[in-house]
Amino acid sequence: MTEPDFVKRDFIMCDLIAKKRDGGEFGAAEIEFWLRGVLDGSIPDYQTTALLMAIYFRGLSEHETFLLTDAIVRSGDVLDLSHIPGCKADKHSTGGVGDKTTLIAMPLAAVCGLTIVKMSGRSLGKTGGTADKLESVPGFRLTLEPADLQHQAEAERLVLITQSSNLTPADKRLYALRDLTSTVDSLPLIAASVMSKKIAAGADVIVLDVKFGRGAFMPDAANAVKLAELMVELGRQAGRKIAALITSMEAPLGRAVGNALEVWEAAETLRGYGAPDLRLLSLALTGEQLYLAGLAETRRQGFRLAAQALEDGRGLTKFLRFLRAQGGDTAKLEQGGFLLAKTVLVVRAPRGGYLQAVDAARVAGIVQHLGAGRLRVEDKIDHQVGVWFDKQCGDKLTSGEPLAHIYAESEEQAKAAAAALLSACTFSDTLPELPPLIYGVVTTEGFIPWTELQQDYQ
Amino acid sequence: MTEPDFVKRDFIMCDLIAKKRDGGEFGAAEIEFWLRGVLDGSIPDYQTTALLMAIYFRGLSEHETFLLTDAIVRSGDVLDLSHIPGCKADKHSTGGVGDKTTLIAMPLAAVCGLTIVKMSGRSLGKTGGTADKLESVPGFRLTLEPADLQHQAEAERLVLITQSSNLTPADKRLYALRDLTSTVDSLPLIAASVMSKKIAAGADVIVLDVKFGRGAFMPDAANAVKLAELMVELGRQAGRKIAALITSMEAPLGRAVGNALEVWEAAETLRGYGAPDLRLLSLALTGEQLYLAGLAETRRQGFRLAAQALEDGRGLTKFLRFLRAQGGDTAKLEQGGFLLAKTVLVVRAPRGGYLQAVDAARVAGIVQHLGAGRLRVEDKIDHQVGVWFDKQCGDKLTSGEPLAHIYAESEEQAKAAAAALLSACTFSDTLPELPPLIYGVVTTEGFIPWTELQQDYQ
Repeated sequence: MTEPDFVKRDFIMCDLIAKKRDGGEFGAAEIEFWLRGVLDGSIPDYQTTALLMAIYFRGLSEHETFLLTDAIVRSGDVLDLSHIPGCKADKHSTGGVGDKTTLIAMPLAAVCGLTIVKMSGRSLGKTGGTADKLESVPGFRLTLEPADLQHQAEAERLVLITQSSNLTPADKRLYALRDLTSTVDSLPLIAASVMSKKIAAGADVIVLDVKFGRGAFMPDAANAVKLAELMVELGRQAGRKIAALITSMEAPLGRAVGNALEVWEAAETLRGYGAPDLRLLSLALTGEQLYLAGLAETRRQGFRLAAQALEDGRGLTKFLRFLRAQGGDTAKLEQGGFLLAKTVLVVRAPRGGYLQAVDAARVAGIVQHLGAGRLRVEDKIDHQVGVWFDKQCGDKLTSGEPLAHIYAESEEQAKAAAAALLSACTFSDTLPELPPLIYGVVTTEGFIPWTELQQDYQ
Repeated sequence: MTEPDFVKRDFIMCDLIAKKRDGGEFGAAEIEFWLRGVLDGSIPDYQTTALLMAIYFRGLSEHETFLLTDAIVRSGDVLDLSHIPGCKADKHSTGGVGDKTTLIAMPLAAVCGLTIVKMSGRSLGKTGGTADKLESVPGFRLTLEPADLQHQAEAERLVLITQSSNLTPADKRLYALRDLTSTVDSLPLIAASVMSKKIAAGADVIVLDVKFGRGAFMPDAANAVKLAELMVELGRQAGRKIAALITSMEAPLGRAVGNALEVWEAAETLRGYGAPDLRLLSLALTGEQLYLAGLAETRRQGFRLAAQALEDGRGLTKFLRFLRAQGGDTAKLEQGGFLLAKTVLVVRAPRGGYLQAVDAARVAGIVQHLGAGRLRVEDKIDHQVGVWFDKQCGDKLTSGEPLAHIYAESEEQAKAAAAALLSACTFSDTLPELPPLIYGVVTTEGFIPWTELQQDYQ
């Protein structure tokens, strides 16, 4: 950090690769040299990818990861939200199936006094990102003039726009190369990528949702905690208030997977009819933001404030006002309806007993196949297809009763999806024992397990 | 090897990288897909270098290394020497300092009945390759018309030309990328690179000289044996008769380092005035070729045949005839003289006692600095500079007597080289114990240590 002469010093990239290959640790000047070369083209991609693979095997120290994150932040614009009043908060999920908590937590946080100026990229995931979901609302705009953004942030405390094209350009380049060279799956590289974007986006308070399990990037809780600890430390060192929830992503979150379906489920949840898992996580994420911002004195109070904003309908009102402020036509959502694909197929329980498990990764694949996700940035997605689960894990079943509804563009696609969906479900005779959705919270003070947390989440 | 449909099958390069990253093993079709993509440009270099780094960490199985070698051989021309009569033999060193054994072993082998049609690339090493050394002989030509090559091979049994531009093009591309991404130092990649060139060059008999120590690529004997075993197995699978000598490269081999100096030392050795280490290794390499070719019944007989061809002067006569056949002016060599740089500086022993060690790597650096080596293929080299050691390791010294002669283009360069040379030498009061030059021989039947070999080398 404090090597003021780094711009003058030069290195030989081949030597840097060898250093990391042999387990060495980079200083600020070396990381700066690399990233500068990545951006100005003076270091060829084939050297960068060799270094990325060496990092995959050798890792980065915490200090190196901090230096890399910092260099990525400075590679492009850093948003200055200081002209917007109030405490600015942000929430980020490492990606899950059916995860629409942002749509619920954002309006609740705004109602409770936080200001949300959120950037959201269009997703390359299997089932659409937050921006994709919101675009399923007719007329909704993801770009605002600066004056309109400022006005809406002050009036509504809630704005969501697409990511600025010059935010963390070094991350864009590195991520594209990692994606093509099987070097995505590296804890320090993931942490630097996520946190550089969050830090550059300017929020004072950051709450992360680090998911693990079949439908998530991290395979298990232990790795999710490791990643969370690293990201929390990076945020702390950048002067942000930060915490990370560690949550299970074995089965889809809530009932809906698919863009318009998920917006509708978010509205239903804000209306008071949410699935228990989705409601719990949305409130916990909102409460954590309020607690970190000092708007709640305890975690428990944060959760209660969020729950009150949901229960008295202020969250729903805020959500609809936000959608309308950015051009969204909310008429159907207000009436409790929504636009969906024309072919609907009911998937029925093949037996009685209990729904034991639903493989989130396979559900994501099914919904992607229906057309809800994209493979390339330029791909169009179909907002109106998806799956609605009438039953969730642990629910009792009677043979033949509706298990799920499939919304597809054709009878053929619907039938294929139905067959695949049944094979993604497992059933049991007795009530399955389900692990808690929230495994714990990683804070700057340490890890708090679910057994200690649950009393705060009532 | 027996996957006849590989040309039709396609893979996703990113998946291949992930497979190797996770320790998987490639089949023939996967390696073929990769190399084809490297050559036709359909696989970008940044994916190839990520895979090379994954191979650096995960290695290649012996079977994968064989498949890679085979695919590299087939990526370009494979020389057909069948129209040239006799048993064709080749000799290859992994690279050392002062190693001019090729110049001595080639004519001895030809005298004893083998046919040598050798390709030699211009070196990127610090002190010039065999082709560079021969170009220090005025008029010597490294390119021959096919008819002239055939005629010389039949008449002299000895031809040396520069490497065909289309021999193992995949190796050229891979090596260039490895060189730029610190992935050179991988046993299976080194083995595939060396052996693909040797196999494509068409010889029936191949004798390798795998060096270890300060002046060599391999740091120690154990790794040199491992590399040799892999290369011998690759040669055997390709149907060649092959063995590898494992030799120490702590100090320069012989007395000369530098192009013209080394040619002169080769002639001196063939004249019967060779340094003991250089003479021993040259005869052992020649004898091994004769033994493998069936021209000697035992290793001992091979060595004796080579020694006789040296002692009775036939080797020197053959060497001079060979040089003249390719245009070389041998007048000075025949008179026992040679062309050298105009500044000569004598380095004197700073003390009495014994010369304990000479750091081969530092000597190589000194001679490169004098101008004898190149950094880029297009660099010009100075054939007439170098170092001549009057003393070798183990020699007794009187303070002030000549230790070495430095041949340089300027007084200044000579003085700098002299100072550096003294600091590359260590001295002792008592006779130092020197390990044997030849550590052992790796054959297709197994390893033979020096203790068993030495009785054959008399």
